[in-house]
Amino acid sequence: MKSEIRIIGIDDAPFTFNDDKTDIIGVVMRGNNYIEGVLHDIIQIDGLDATKKCEKMITKTRHYTQLKAVLFDGSTQGGFNIIDTELLWKKTKIPNITVTRKHPDFKKIQRALQTHFSDWKQRLSLLEKGRLYKMKTAYNPIFIKCEGISFSQSKEIIKLATIRGVIPEPLRIAHIIASGISKGESYGKA
Amino acid sequence: MKSEIRIIGIDDAPFTFNDDKTDIIGVVMRGNNYIEGVLHDIIQIDGLDATKKCEKMITKTRHYTQLKAVLFDGSTQGGFNIIDTELLWKKTKIPNITVTRKHPDFKKIQRALQTHFSDWKQRLSLLEKGRLYKMKTAYNPIFIKCEGISFSQSKEIIKLATIRGVIPEPLRIAHIIASGISKGESYGKA
Repeated sequence: MKSEIRIIGIDDAPFTFNDDKTDIIGVVMRGNNYIEGVLHDIIQIDGLDATKKCEKMITKTRHYTQLKAVLFDGSTQGGFNIIDTELLWKKTKIPNITVTRKHPDFKKIQRALQTHFSDWKQRLSLLEKGRLYKMKTAYNPIFIKCEGISFSQSKEIIKLATIRGVIPEPLRIAHIIASGISKGESYGKA
Repeated sequence: MKSEIRIIGIDDAPFTFNDDKTDIIGVVMRGNNYIEGVLHDIIQIDGLDATKKCEKMITKTRHYTQLKAVLFDGSTQGGFNIIDTELLWKKTKIPNITVTRKHPDFKKIQRALQTHFSDWKQRLSLLEKGRLYKMKTAYNPIFIKCEGISFSQSKEIIKLATIRGVIPEPLRIAHIIASGISKGESYGKA
């Protein structure tokens, strides 16, 4: 795989219980070291618009036809606004890879969803959909879901997009920007 | 000079005639390829608060003591909200370097300032203060002002912070973020 492939990483901004909306930031990079563009949109916290907004972000950017993969830090944005990664792949035709540091605790998630959402079954089924792979790294393992791309190719993309630690640069930087614009200074890890 | 020095680039977001405020974005980088943090504040368009807001951004970040230089894309932010780079150096003790692609046309600037500002003399004198150096690059020359640092050291910092073209990465990325968050998609050159 060429090291200069274009990848977009999408992450949401931190929010408080008083907010009903939050920012999502997309970072388009060539390989792991050259930022080509930054995209911005707004989603409802705990809403149902994350898939649509991500689809728009991906297909409307001028980099669309050159994108080789979309990276997400978990498939929930803005609380439990869950990305339907299978639908997103069908709509955009750009493979997507979801990275998480921890294996999701589906029992805990189910309890949280049941408490707050009448449509908890649909939300949970979106989260449970697709196979979760474990990827070894030099640090802790990370967990991967992939749509429109194999696990082996996903690993290759993650490796070439990562400089330090385990989080690929487009995701790490999307997180830094999203937290920086909402809090004044970026903090924490993607 | 070490290639891994920390530099902050500060740029403002584009705005329209209906806006009275705009975003400024600071990007802290190690060398030319690793983003360590993103900072955000808001300034008045054509106001007088840019110097103070930049001082706050620089001195309040957790990277403050490690910063070796501040980079600006021209010394005006948010219209004619002019940065007093000499005062900023005195207050922060971090050297600053102002980069522009074109030699400023002071006669044209004076006419614009006289039309809109009763304090045009003060604003113009801030802009005219300090020596403007011409730096050769592989492309077009750029123009540099520096406070608290020599021209020769400033050139070294600019060279090590630049990947492609003539604009150092912290400034190029600050511009991409600022235009991305205000317009939905980043565009144009810093």
